[in-house]
Amino acid sequence: MSITQAAAVLPHPASNPFIAFLRKPINWFLLFIPLTVALEHVHSIPAPVLFFSAAVAIVPIAALIVASTEQLSTRTGDAIGGLLNATFGNAPELIIALVALKAGLLDMVRASLAGAILANLLMALGVAFLLGGLRFKEQRFNPVATRAYSTMMFVAAVSMTVPSAFNRAFATQGGPIREEKMLNIGIAVLLLLAYGLYLLFSLKTHPHAFASVESEHGGGGHDLDEHWSVTRAIVTLVLASLGAAWMSEILVGAAEGTGKALGMSQVFIGIVFVAIVGGAAESGSAIAMGRKNKMDLSVGIALGSCIQIALFVAPVLVLASYFLAPRPLELAFGRAEIGSLFMAVLCGALVCGDGQSNWYKGIQLLTVYAIIALMFYFMPAAT
Amino acid sequence: MSITQAAAVLPHPASNPFIAFLRKPINWFLLFIPLTVALEHVHSIPAPVLFFSAAVAIVPIAALIVASTEQLSTRTGDAIGGLLNATFGNAPELIIALVALKAGLLDMVRASLAGAILANLLMALGVAFLLGGLRFKEQRFNPVATRAYSTMMFVAAVSMTVPSAFNRAFATQGGPIREEKMLNIGIAVLLLLAYGLYLLFSLKTHPHAFASVESEHGGGGHDLDEHWSVTRAIVTLVLASLGAAWMSEILVGAAEGTGKALGMSQVFIGIVFVAIVGGAAESGSAIAMGRKNKMDLSVGIALGSCIQIALFVAPVLVLASYFLAPRPLELAFGRAEIGSLFMAVLCGALVCGDGQSNWYKGIQLLTVYAIIALMFYFMPAAT
Amino acid sequence: MSITQAAAVLPHPASNPFIAFLRKPINWFLLFIPLTVALEHVHSIPAPVLFFSAAVAIVPIAALIVASTEQLSTRTGDAIGGLLNATFGNAPELIIALVALKAGLLDMVRASLAGAILANLLMALGVAFLLGGLRFKEQRFNPVATRAYSTMMFVAAVSMTVPSAFNRAFATQGGPIREEKMLNIGIAVLLLLAYGLYLLFSLKTHPHAFASVESEHGGGGHDLDEHWSVTRAIVTLVLASLGAAWMSEILVGAAEGTGKALGMSQVFIGIVFVAIVGGAAESGSAIAMGRKNKMDLSVGIALGSCIQIALFVAPVLVLASYFLAPRPLELAFGRAEIGSLFMAVLCGALVCGDGQSNWYKGIQLLTVYAIIALMFYFMPAAT
Repeated sequence: MSITQAAAVLPHPASNPFIAFLRKPINWFLLFIPLTVALEHVHSIPAPVLFFSAAVAIVPIAALIVASTEQLSTRTGDAIGGLLNATFGNAPELIIALVALKAGLLDMVRASLAGAILANLLMALGVAFLLGGLRFKEQRFNPVATRAYSTMMFVAAVSMTVPSAFNRAFATQGGPIREEKMLNIGIAVLLLLAYGLYLLFSLKTHPHAFASVESEHGGGGHDLDEHWSVTRAIVTLVLASLGAAWMSEILVGAAEGTGKALGMSQVFIGIVFVAIVGGAAESGSAIAMGRKNKMDLSVGIALGSCIQIALFVAPVLVLASYFLAPRPLELAFGRAEIGSLFMAVLCGALVCGDGQSNWYKGIQLLTVYAIIALMFYFMPAAT
Repeated sequence: MSITQAAAVLPHPASNPFIAFLRKPINWFLLFIPLTVALEHVHSIPAPVLFFSAAVAIVPIAALIVASTEQLSTRTGDAIGGLLNATFGNAPELIIALVALKAGLLDMVRASLAGAILANLLMALGVAFLLGGLRFKEQRFNPVATRAYSTMMFVAAVSMTVPSAFNRAFATQGGPIREEKMLNIGIAVLLLLAYGLYLLFSLKTHPHAFASVESEHGGGGHDLDEHWSVTRAIVTLVLASLGAAWMSEILVGAAEGTGKALGMSQVFIGIVFVAIVGGAAESGSAIAMGRKNKMDLSVGIALGSCIQIALFVAPVLVLASYFLAPRPLELAFGRAEIGSLFMAVLCGALVCGDGQSNWYKGIQLLTVYAIIALMFYFMPAAT
Repeated sequence: MSITQAAAVLPHPASNPFIAFLRKPINWFLLFIPLTVALEHVHSIPAPVLFFSAAVAIVPIAALIVASTEQLSTRTGDAIGGLLNATFGNAPELIIALVALKAGLLDMVRASLAGAILANLLMALGVAFLLGGLRFKEQRFNPVATRAYSTMMFVAAVSMTVPSAFNRAFATQGGPIREEKMLNIGIAVLLLLAYGLYLLFSLKTHPHAFASVESEHGGGGHDLDEHWSVTRAIVTLVLASLGAAWMSEILVGAAEGTGKALGMSQVFIGIVFVAIVGGAAESGSAIAMGRKNKMDLSVGIALGSCIQIALFVAPVLVLASYFLAPRPLELAFGRAEIGSLFMAVLCGALVCGDGQSNWYKGIQLLTVYAIIALMFYFMPAAT
């Protein structure tokens, strides 16, 4: 949520916004946009090159989306700002997934949803704990907020398991699935409702429960290293979203060829690469906060992002699939994905539950991530 | 456990016990007893009408059973009183289940056991947290007792899973089930043993661990809004139990027809309707305590009731089935039921673990309940 | 880890080490070594007699291995001593498993690994809580260390689940298992890496997090009731290891016949008997500490032993199997074993999470152990 802060290299930003823009190394990666477009027109280009070029191009675009959302949110009140952050915070994931949805790559969409949660919960938090813990022996954060996040994550994981178990049980039976569509839409609506109430809870009735996280937003602009005009923020947001959609289309188009060339399944590409690309901006932010010993921010960004994906991005994609996709998207994850989600959520709850972190907790989270990634790497494409 | 308190509308009860009786709105529902009996003799009556009439009639009867148990327990010492409460606290569930057992509706008995735990843990507690949280911003309760309850619940869920997994694994293999009956009885005996020791623990050696809950019983009668003679209490208990058995027989008899008429499976009717009817008295009590900010009582009633069902009612039904039922009852729940139980228990442990509640925690529990109910609603009857 | 202390019967040890040796009742069981060797040459001897004689002989040998390791570790610095304890602490389990591995009894090896974790986590800790709780109403221990252990156990359980799920999913599919060997070795290496970092964490960077446990090692020799010369310690360690290997060979050789004679499956013998024999020394130590109200030591020994088995013994066996065993050992546990492991780990985390124990917590752990053992007893040998 505070990408601009995380990416800041200058204590006193230059007065010229263009120079300030260029001084941030992350923005140099925007050069990958023209490069990707150029590569796309070279016919003999191997799919993996195109894929990774588009992936790299998306990272700074995602950072711009997050930064402009943040700038807009400081112009509004706390509640509306929080709402903006909550809605656009995972815009990059949402855009990539919508593009993949339209292309009918439903397995990849599901995998990228599960992967985004794994990446935030295990990888981003693991790296943040590891790097933070190497600098500061013991780091502390608000356990009450973490507990609230953990419960939310658990509820979200349950909501995703039920239709998956349902789908699997009756797919193998071969029997008629009674109004499976109704269940699918019913759960999506329930999740959005739970998300709406979560926003009401965290922004209106109990903001104090998320105190340290909220202080960043509430503290107005003095946390940001630069101020954008509202026009600039809106224009950046629109342009970056268009750019994200453009690059996502190239990324998704090259995904299948990349899988074949590298011997990876659609699920592995979705659960690892697409998920990391979509969440890179927020992950980077969570890690940067960890290194600055702002653990409440770090944990809040990583876990908050998971909740948004599970309770907002996922049901929106389900509902959107009835208009956009060739077939409706069901939240019917495979056994391995559901198992990984539950392990990640319980692991996160156990590791974060006492409000303390050290480098070894980071290693624990990363070990679980590595084992899960290994499993998906070796899993046959057929599944 | 303190239904009389929960149902009290008058600060100073009338001296005439009959008028006092009539002044409680819940007792007016006793009129559903003659109504149900009358309806049963109308041959063209649709099964759902009869089913719901019997269901409504059971609610005030259950309240009377609980109230008379409570009156008796104030006449005895703390330990015996606690024992009485613990044994008769779930009498309504037990009576309904015994009637269904005799009728050979084993799937419905199992479903109502699982459903009673879900209803107490997710629905009753969820509503208590929600309504309590809307009145009082933050509510607190004894986390040590909650932790003890959670662990008990987890042990109980494990005990129910093992025979289920066992049964499923070998039913599909088609192989011979070596002394499955022995396992079934062995686990029932283990559960009853664990329950006996739990009573010893909570009533004798460590009552202080459940302090706030116990203070209600220990405080003698001044918590009750009226005093019954021992005779009245015993007569009420016997009459109400007979009435519960009578109504249960009508309820269970109409269950199959209701399912067919409304397109619901036996499992759904058991897991939702029968479970809610059987536990209505205690659920209502837990909710009323939540609204009065007596959270320790509220959590104690809801979780204590779950433990009684898992460690006492379930094994008693298993053992009784060898005498009463056409086939022995095995604690062999379906995958969906076991999955739901574990989710509910872990969810409850996560949500209650810090000894604080707010309205959103109520929403979380209710969301999980709604998702589980949705799943069972859409699940084909064949399973 | 402090067997000598646990087994001490004399407040002031005799100056003659031989008499001191004989004064410990556990050492009298060493007589079972010649008895077992003699029995082996009686051809008509029933397999169960030989099996249990070898099992009894292993217990004092295991105690000698642990004692000599401890003596050696007091001669070295804290870190090296800790390393020695960590490496040789589970030597008996490792030796038995290596012998079974060489004999190709892979199912028994896997079962004994799972069983050793169950025995430590549920049985040893359960008995320690029960006996300690009967003496002392409420016992306390360091919840931070317990939490670290719980998370480690959870990570270890996850690491064991992934290859199991993988193996099962594709065994049933009948499809080609793409480089399953790579996954197997990859996870073994990851586990050893995690174990190495765990040692670095617990011995070097954050020893204070395990404070009370560590004080035993750090406190030098005054905790031990006698001092051995380095030579005596090394000679004892080598001789006891050889003796353990010898007895293990007899034990493993008689295991199959014992199973047939008693109608028990290889898995049941592995998960209960072999596991208890291998871990008897450490279990006894954990229980003795519980009775002395040294709960930090008790919990540390039991949980530390689980982590060593999962993160050190298991991957070493996997890697060794490529050289020793007729077929490679895969960490492919059955559903029942994995389910039991997770239940045990979650149960342990819930029960120990608040740093308090009482007799009923012991009963809870033992109930879960009894239910799991019952299940494996009744499970057909075919699975």
